[in-house]
Amino acid sequence: MPKKNQIIIGIDPGTRITGYGIIQVTSSGEIPLDFGCIRPPPTLPIAERYLAIFEAITHLIEKHQPDALAVETQFMYKNAQSALKLGMAKGAVLLAAAKAKIPIFEYAPKKAKLAVVGNGAASKEQLQKMIQLLLRLPQLPQPEDAADALALALCHAHTNKFTV
Amino acid sequence: MPKKNQIIIGIDPGTRITGYGIIQVTSSGEIPLDFGCIRPPPTLPIAERYLAIFEAITHLIEKHQPDALAVETQFMYKNAQSALKLGMAKGAVLLAAAKAKIPIFEYAPKKAKLAVVGNGAASKEQLQKMIQLLLRLPQLPQPEDAADALALALCHAHTNKFTV
Repeated sequence: MPKKNQIIIGIDPGTRITGYGIIQVTSSGEIPLDFGCIRPPPTLPIAERYLAIFEAITHLIEKHQPDALAVETQFMYKNAQSALKLGMAKGAVLLAAAKAKIPIFEYAPKKAKLAVVGNGAASKEQLQKMIQLLLRLPQLPQPEDAADALALALCHAHTNKFTV
Repeated sequence: MPKKNQIIIGIDPGTRITGYGIIQVTSSGEIPLDFGCIRPPPTLPIAERYLAIFEAITHLIEKHQPDALAVETQFMYKNAQSALKLGMAKGAVLLAAAKAKIPIFEYAPKKAKLAVVGNGAASKEQLQKMIQLLLRLPQLPQPEDAADALALALCHAHTNKFTV
């Protein structure tokens, strides 16, 4: 049985914007600890942008000590060159998790929507609204990439039915 | 003018095999310092394989203190999924260089062949033979991935015409 009060970090990696969302599973549901986006300055050389992602994720892991990292399985890219770049951003996230010995779980976007909204084809607005409700946020989680990351963290929590 | 006795590390990243080759530019030509391959055990979870690549490159950088890292520009992959994986391997290499503040230079395979053999369409055997000659190796550099990495390092040395 997973230990109580699991902390889960969800990540939606991207070359320009990487969303993150950190939640804690409690006896009264999930609570949000932090969420937002990493936006490395586009003027930085590309390797330094990946380093910025790696260091930001490393910092979040050190700060929140998550028990698991949930990341999006990627299928969507314009072409092989953009897949290569996305792979580098995702690699920076996975490296930060592996370095900190955090177990990694991958979920397809549809699976995250299904787990959070109950509908794999839910709209972005439906997903944001449900995250707002579940996490009792004062407003819709913004930006979209942070909402997607929170959805991944919630998906991991719901999929694993942690007993608290 | 680049400083004397530049040390250059060439890397040919791959998800299964990452070749590396380290050379030093001297007044009597280039000398090989080290070359070989990083082969993370395929039984490891994928993120740990990227971590193994990152740590091996970090170790090589610490040991040899290169002034530059030359990496292959990638165009060849079967499909977007393999480009994504290759991106993760390449990302691990670029991260190690960025973390150590080593400048990164990218060369297309054709450009490396042109710089080393004088023919962008040279065969793998011609490339290996020329590397053997240039670096005065007792035998052909093996395996192929290490030879490709040495070619990238030599390409950087020849392209920049370091004065020593």
